Amino acid sequence: MSKKILVVGGVAGGAGTAARARRLDEDAEIIMFERGPHVSFSNCALPYHLSGVVKDCDDLVLMCPTNFAEQYNIDARVNNEVLSIDREAKTVEVKNLKSGETYTEDYDKLVLSPGANPIKPQSIKGVNNDNVFTIRNVVDIDKLNTYVEENDVEDIAVIGAGYIGIEIAENFIHNGKNVALVEAMDQILQPLDYDMAQILQKELHDNGVNMILSDALTEVHDDHIVVESGKKIDAEAVVLAIGVSPETELAEEAGLKIGKTGGIEVNHNYVTSDPDIYAVGDVIEVYSKIARSKTRLPLAGPAQRQARAAANHIYNIPNKNNGVIGSSVIRAFDYNAATTGLNEKQLKDAGISYDFVYVIPTDKVGLMPDANPLHFKLLYEVPTGKILGAQAVGKGNVDKRIDVIATSILLDATVEDLTESELAYAPLFSTPRNAVNQASLVATNLINNRFRQVPVSKVRELVEKDAFIVDVREKEEYEMGHLVNAVNIPLSELRERTDEIPKDQPVYLHCRSAQRSYNACLALQGRDFDNVINISGSFLGICCYEYFLDQTTDRDKIVTEYNFE
Amino acid sequence: MSKKILVVGGVAGGAGTAARARRLDEDAEIIMFERGPHVSFSNCALPYHLSGVVKDCDDLVLMCPTNFAEQYNIDARVNNEVLSIDREAKTVEVKNLKSGETYTEDYDKLVLSPGANPIKPQSIKGVNNDNVFTIRNVVDIDKLNTYVEENDVEDIAVIGAGYIGIEIAENFIHNGKNVALVEAMDQILQPLDYDMAQILQKELHDNGVNMILSDALTEVHDDHIVVESGKKIDAEAVVLAIGVSPETELAEEAGLKIGKTGGIEVNHNYVTSDPDIYAVGDVIEVYSKIARSKTRLPLAGPAQRQARAAANHIYNIPNKNNGVIGSSVIRAFDYNAATTGLNEKQLKDAGISYDFVYVIPTDKVGLMPDANPLHFKLLYEVPTGKILGAQAVGKGNVDKRIDVIATSILLDATVEDLTESELAYAPLFSTPRNAVNQASLVATNLINNRFRQVPVSKVRELVEKDAFIVDVREKEEYEMGHLVNAVNIPLSELRERTDEIPKDQPVYLHCRSAQRSYNACLALQGRDFDNVINISGSFLGICCYEYFLDQTTDRDKIVTEYNFE
Repeated sequence: MSKKILVVGGVAGGAGTAARARRLDEDAEIIMFERGPHVSFSNCALPYHLSGVVKDCDDLVLMCPTNFAEQYNIDARVNNEVLSIDREAKTVEVKNLKSGETYTEDYDKLVLSPGANPIKPQSIKGVNNDNVFTIRNVVDIDKLNTYVEENDVEDIAVIGAGYIGIEIAENFIHNGKNVALVEAMDQILQPLDYDMAQILQKELHDNGVNMILSDALTEVHDDHIVVESGKKIDAEAVVLAIGVSPETELAEEAGLKIGKTGGIEVNHNYVTSDPDIYAVGDVIEVYSKIARSKTRLPLAGPAQRQARAAANHIYNIPNKNNGVIGSSVIRAFDYNAATTGLNEKQLKDAGISYDFVYVIPTDKVGLMPDANPLHFKLLYEVPTGKILGAQAVGKGNVDKRIDVIATSILLDATVEDLTESELAYAPLFSTPRNAVNQASLVATNLINNRFRQVPVSKVRELVEKDAFIVDVREKEEYEMGHLVNAVNIPLSELRERTDEIPKDQPVYLHCRSAQRSYNACLALQGRDFDNVINISGSFLGICCYEYFLDQTTDRDKIVTEYNFE
Repeated sequence: MSKKILVVGGVAGGAGTAARARRLDEDAEIIMFERGPHVSFSNCALPYHLSGVVKDCDDLVLMCPTNFAEQYNIDARVNNEVLSIDREAKTVEVKNLKSGETYTEDYDKLVLSPGANPIKPQSIKGVNNDNVFTIRNVVDIDKLNTYVEENDVEDIAVIGAGYIGIEIAENFIHNGKNVALVEAMDQILQPLDYDMAQILQKELHDNGVNMILSDALTEVHDDHIVVESGKKIDAEAVVLAIGVSPETELAEEAGLKIGKTGGIEVNHNYVTSDPDIYAVGDVIEVYSKIARSKTRLPLAGPAQRQARAAANHIYNIPNKNNGVIGSSVIRAFDYNAATTGLNEKQLKDAGISYDFVYVIPTDKVGLMPDANPLHFKLLYEVPTGKILGAQAVGKGNVDKRIDVIATSILLDATVEDLTESELAYAPLFSTPRNAVNQASLVATNLINNRFRQVPVSKVRELVEKDAFIVDVREKEEYEMGHLVNAVNIPLSELRERTDEIPKDQPVYLHCRSAQRSYNACLALQGRDFDNVINISGSFLGICCYEYFLDQTTDRDKIVTEYNFE
């Protein structure tokens, strides 16, 4: 007898499971329920409607129920909400939201892919006002866009500077709006470390985003908001993008096990605590390959893998399950930022012993048009050298370096392994020794104690303590801007001027991107200076790091006036 | 006592070894001999001088001897040619090409990095004329550019359609010249397979390059050349880019072992048959990790790894040596092409049992500006699924997919491993199921016999044999152009029209990019059609494949008139 499969949720996870099930079984009866009016839309592209990059909202819908019927013989029922599950009877109760009737549908296998809900804290005064929006689907983005257009909204507050918040802010700026971006943490984009986030913050700031960090929304009014610090900010429309919460009600009411992270607990094959019920997508908790613990990761790529795996298991096809790594990328104006694996904060939380390197090669050969610095941070386990994560920020193709690292993590590579990596090179695409190679070589040197380094985040403290800092750039470079108390001894004069460098205290060296200062460190070590330390990231890194601090703090105590671009 | 290290050759390999040696040993005496007037120039960027992208020739020189002296305490002697090696005395004889004097220099360790010479077959009539050029260094490119400018050259023939030949052709076209590109083989860019090369050939053709394949240069005259077929082609200047030959004379005369491939034989640590002599760069033969045999790979990335390893070994630091994979990328007008590992021809030569998949996703979400088809071919071992190579061609970021595959090959991954890969996704950068995921899923399906496929290269034969071909695209798509004898049964009508499909003969299915036809194959299989075969690459692939053939053959016998863009 042929199987009857019910799927709750018609976007990434749900649609993927249904389609794969059909490919595996032409005879199965497959019904997909979607509460909203659309199945299979491009969630990740929603913000691009706000700038007109995606002009017509309907374009965001990739497939309609008719397509599912004709191409897959899948019964996709939009505006149909699954109200409850009777696990014993193996049935679900469904409400047709158009007609108002409810009906029952039985199943052999049930797949839950209801997704996650944008968080809307009721503690915020006015959070339910008509001018407050959250973005989950095509209807939401249409509503927001229409509201902004019809009311000639000029000032918009976006709350939450994660991926969606930044994309919404960028698209509104492109549309000529004034945008305040409010973030409760002290940096944007939590997947990035604080140091890497600064570079992107500068870009948002330079493009007119009014960034308000370490502050939270407390009140919404018709034409302004109030934040915790008491500041009032003009805003006729407010978009909440502070995170999502897995939509587990249906599963909870059915008595399915919910994990500690708040997502539905699933096994290797995405089976819930009921062997006939699967769950995939943003609603489940997943296993972090690196942290070796449960987490949530509401991303499209993993949802598709889970969908395929769930359908496979319904048909007894074995699955690989490597846990999740977490890779992502965002564009913010002219900059791109990509990450994979765990960042410093997550590694500390997971109790994993790590170190990191920070290199800034150009993204292509310097002679080529549009060559730009690529800020690349690679994190690895100590003492094993196993790769744990990476972050890249720059104007160029940062994502390609992150994809290489994501693949390296998947395949359990070490930094030593990557010193032998052979990536595609031509002057327009990369450098002969690219970011991945360079970072892995530096890491290998560090692991083997060939030199020592401090990160740019320590430089302020060094300057304040009046540490001995040598700037080994050429005189002209130094004169265009430098650390306030750095001594300038160009690498080209270093070997003749070693008598100016003390042997009885730590000596910190930097240049522009840490490459010349690395050579300087080794030259001094070879001349019996045994307390020399390279400033990883060097002047480029320092300026990026200190730049945004400048908005609030006294940058001129650290760096002389300088435009680091 | 401190070491004395001599290095022959001052570009990638030589300069890299010298610099790394200095970092490892502040006390060593290091002398680097370069026959030409420049050390450390960007060979790969040379062609970009011809279009003015690199305006000033001098910009191609990255470091001068003074830089080496000041920054590295390395004695870089340009215009100094090493004439011979006395291995017993451990000395070299050097000629100062400016003064004409010769002198002797002794060594503890000698590193050979003389590179490779462009091939200039003396069998070609007129090959030594003043209007014939080869490109190896800054002097060469300056000479060519100056000749073209001073003589108002309009018509140029580039012989050899490899990386350098294509880049020279492109840069001359950008400079408004008429360019004929002559290639003895039946396709451009040998690292690509024939099918993938067609896409790039169309791009060159569309941009006005007069491509002459399967033909060889026989005569050079003042204003034209003659090729083997007898054709005369206008050309006032001729650039030979038909390959390079390792410059082994010095090594041979010193009695060092030369490998079968013609390069100097080296061991794991790049030591030659003399324990005090190392060789790195284009002059050596390397070990192919995939083919498990010796080969030559004159590329910048591997040269840098070899340089570092040689210096390490001088100082007893152990090295990893994974052999070479071979990764490369090129831009040709609006298209990019990248490859890694072995292609079909190389796999056949190596006797490795393989299969391949060909997928054509978009390079970013279709809704985003500049989304374009990404032609991606993945080759893997049968039956192990181990990844052997990949090729990608398209307008977008093809290189990032190839870098992922190069990393997968380095780390011995299988197609099954890559089904779990988690790459950075956002609509502007990729698709949720990207090319790598998609190809590995298709390959895994093939390995598990879930369906069968034929490549686009077999379609002509199928059409000529009048095979039963079903085009499952929608009617409007079919009407815009189709295979001459394909039956149109859209996927959306397939399940109602199965009676139109025979069960007693093979049925070949295709759509636009093979995704709908894959669904159609599985649907038919589920309805007891057991001889259905998907055309991998589908209509997009067929059109690309047949397009260039059209220049010489009867494409209209295969495909109705159609602009496939």
